[in-house]
Amino acid sequence: MIVNEMMFQTAAQNICEVGRFLYSKGWCPATSSNFSVRIDQDYAAITASGKHKGELTEEDILLIDLNGKAIQSNLKSSAETFLHTGLYQRDKAIKSVLHTHSVNATVLSRLYEKQGFIRVEDFEVLKALPNIETHETFLNIPIFLNTQDIATLSKEVDQYLDNNPHTFGYCIAGHGFYTWGNNLNAARRHIEAFEFLFECAILEMQLQCKSNAS
Amino acid sequence: MIVNEMMFQTAAQNICEVGRFLYSKGWCPATSSNFSVRIDQDYAAITASGKHKGELTEEDILLIDLNGKAIQSNLKSSAETFLHTGLYQRDKAIKSVLHTHSVNATVLSRLYEKQGFIRVEDFEVLKALPNIETHETFLNIPIFLNTQDIATLSKEVDQYLDNNPHTFGYCIAGHGFYTWGNNLNAARRHIEAFEFLFECAILEMQLQCKSNAS
Amino acid sequence: MIVNEMMFQTAAQNICEVGRFLYSKGWCPATSSNFSVRIDQDYAAITASGKHKGELTEEDILLIDLNGKAIQSNLKSSAETFLHTGLYQRDKAIKSVLHTHSVNATVLSRLYEKQGFIRVEDFEVLKALPNIETHETFLNIPIFLNTQDIATLSKEVDQYLDNNPHTFGYCIAGHGFYTWGNNLNAARRHIEAFEFLFECAILEMQLQCKSNAS
Amino acid sequence: MIVNEMMFQTAAQNICEVGRFLYSKGWCPATSSNFSVRIDQDYAAITASGKHKGELTEEDILLIDLNGKAIQSNLKSSAETFLHTGLYQRDKAIKSVLHTHSVNATVLSRLYEKQGFIRVEDFEVLKALPNIETHETFLNIPIFLNTQDIATLSKEVDQYLDNNPHTFGYCIAGHGFYTWGNNLNAARRHIEAFEFLFECAILEMQLQCKSNAS
Repeated sequence: MIVNEMMFQTAAQNICEVGRFLYSKGWCPATSSNFSVRIDQDYAAITASGKHKGELTEEDILLIDLNGKAIQSNLKSSAETFLHTGLYQRDKAIKSVLHTHSVNATVLSRLYEKQGFIRVEDFEVLKALPNIETHETFLNIPIFLNTQDIATLSKEVDQYLDNNPHTFGYCIAGHGFYTWGNNLNAARRHIEAFEFLFECAILEMQLQCKSNAS
Repeated sequence: MIVNEMMFQTAAQNICEVGRFLYSKGWCPATSSNFSVRIDQDYAAITASGKHKGELTEEDILLIDLNGKAIQSNLKSSAETFLHTGLYQRDKAIKSVLHTHSVNATVLSRLYEKQGFIRVEDFEVLKALPNIETHETFLNIPIFLNTQDIATLSKEVDQYLDNNPHTFGYCIAGHGFYTWGNNLNAARRHIEAFEFLFECAILEMQLQCKSNAS
Repeated sequence: MIVNEMMFQTAAQNICEVGRFLYSKGWCPATSSNFSVRIDQDYAAITASGKHKGELTEEDILLIDLNGKAIQSNLKSSAETFLHTGLYQRDKAIKSVLHTHSVNATVLSRLYEKQGFIRVEDFEVLKALPNIETHETFLNIPIFLNTQDIATLSKEVDQYLDNNPHTFGYCIAGHGFYTWGNNLNAARRHIEAFEFLFECAILEMQLQCKSNAS
Repeated sequence: MIVNEMMFQTAAQNICEVGRFLYSKGWCPATSSNFSVRIDQDYAAITASGKHKGELTEEDILLIDLNGKAIQSNLKSSAETFLHTGLYQRDKAIKSVLHTHSVNATVLSRLYEKQGFIRVEDFEVLKALPNIETHETFLNIPIFLNTQDIATLSKEVDQYLDNNPHTFGYCIAGHGFYTWGNNLNAARRHIEAFEFLFECAILEMQLQCKSNAS
């Protein structure tokens, strides 16, 4: 193998485990979502397309180079692989990328599609994200239009991150959510924090309904 | 046995497993729901009536012919068996039928009963359904009136599918949801996708409440 | 022991198991709820007061007579024991009584307290209840005012059941839900059916909010 | 060790277990929340900062004195440790403190931040809290403003408890919830009761939306 076999196996096992976790949360319906872990500066392990993410085995994980090309594998990764490799290429510190499809992220991203971002503000849980030391802040989570042209979308994301380096996650409208981290646990911590914030945002909208109506 | 014994056993085991899965999702309250898997061109395995779908054992699964007649069994399948066999008769490619009773499908099917369908549009998860390659599409999920006259309902479904061949699921108002697939995993993928879409539709209605009221 | 030891043990084990099930559903918060199974015409097994219902062991179950008196036990059953024994006294066919505290039952029972009942209508799942053969029917689930005077409440329930024999469950406002059955599995099936109906009723109210507001 | 080693180990194991429980409920997103158990009149065991509360091991628990100082450990407890030790200092009967971050507590505490408390009234489940013998009562759950200055917040809490001794839990706006008890099980019972009451309060607001709008 072109990379250290044991590193690949560990990455594959960790991806399977995070898949079971994220699926159990209800964030990967049907065979949606894809997850990757960087192996070294040139390669990453990623989920094959079309697999049920709650039931992944090591046979469902393939090695890709950072151009998204499958290495010595008959498996095919998702068309969205470029959204993973684009992040690995732009920042060596990024070691894992997680893409999920929760109901909350999907619905919020459609609702705020025109505005282009979801704003969350003054939550203590914001401190679970990098470089945030106080709740007295806000975060704009960008929303990109959904498209089947992933190469173009990847460039848009790249450009956005150039202009907004303190970004740790984005939505694609009606599609889902991407986050990443300096290791798989950090990426998982981020997704939990973002999904918590999405759930709070939605519940606040539902309750404001009440106060607005009355 | 009139069919390959091992094929029946495998089908029965798979039905028990999918029952535990679907029950764990909350889509089979009480002893509702029924599931089937085609054995060959003439026979299918199906759940017996009145069993708790989260606790199925192989003894709860019976063999039926495609007229819904129990073969060498004292078990009785549900009156709705004809909705399963009707699908197997019309399309040889259908290998599994799943019928569930989620709260969301039940409530949406009552809410849109007069309209006759639930429309879902522009969701990436639509691509989990057969022959859908882009999110830029919509799906009308038909709603049939509930009835205890299953033979007539089966004919209505048949006629609808003649006119709308690209249909992969339907609701019965105040009752539940039917979907199917070219194998049990495909049928399960479809149900996860449809239930995700139902949940999105409901959440969007709840949040539009807010924007409408304000 | 005054009853068959093995029958008591089996009843106790079944109560522990149903406790884990009902707790896992979220219907027994904190140390709320109590469950009983009839042993014979004179005695029943019931949960001791103040135990966590998701973690019951056989040591948490005591024998009572149908006047609610603990038999050869230092355990104390809940003050609400009389609501169990009242049902066993009035109908020999009742073999199990389950009392739970779901959020949905609690909130609906407060919302409809003045009306005195919750009406559910035209749901297929109604057929999970005894003697209901079609969805084309309705059910009024009675709501009693909450009180710490259980003896009086027990009489009120008794009188209601005299006048409304086709009743399989009732709410106490702001408190919880009671159901029963001809065996423990039947009682469990009823609670699943009622909780499904409560969830549908609440979701329909939330969505009607939308249509009313718009 | 400065305290009985076995008592510390037991406390640490119990904290890990309650962490798995509270995480499974969804009340500790990402690496939020912290839990402690008093060892004796001078020391307590507490979770280290930054750990995932659903996956705690004994290595994640440290000993602190009641000034919040880590004893013979390289682990660091949260800045909020003072909110734990402040409670242990003021009341010898307090043996465990649990701090969680549920969506419901977070959202309610923001919604009622100006009012300064959440009122819950006439719920049977109130009897799960100390010294409450009837549902015919109400509880005001105080809400403190969020701050990164924990020492000052701890004093505010202390002052509030001086004036309101029958308090068993409080919120910090946009942050989370604190409760405690005379042992870990009591603290856990309280959190279940409070979260149940929060969920009821939210659902009632959502349904009043409907009645207000119509």
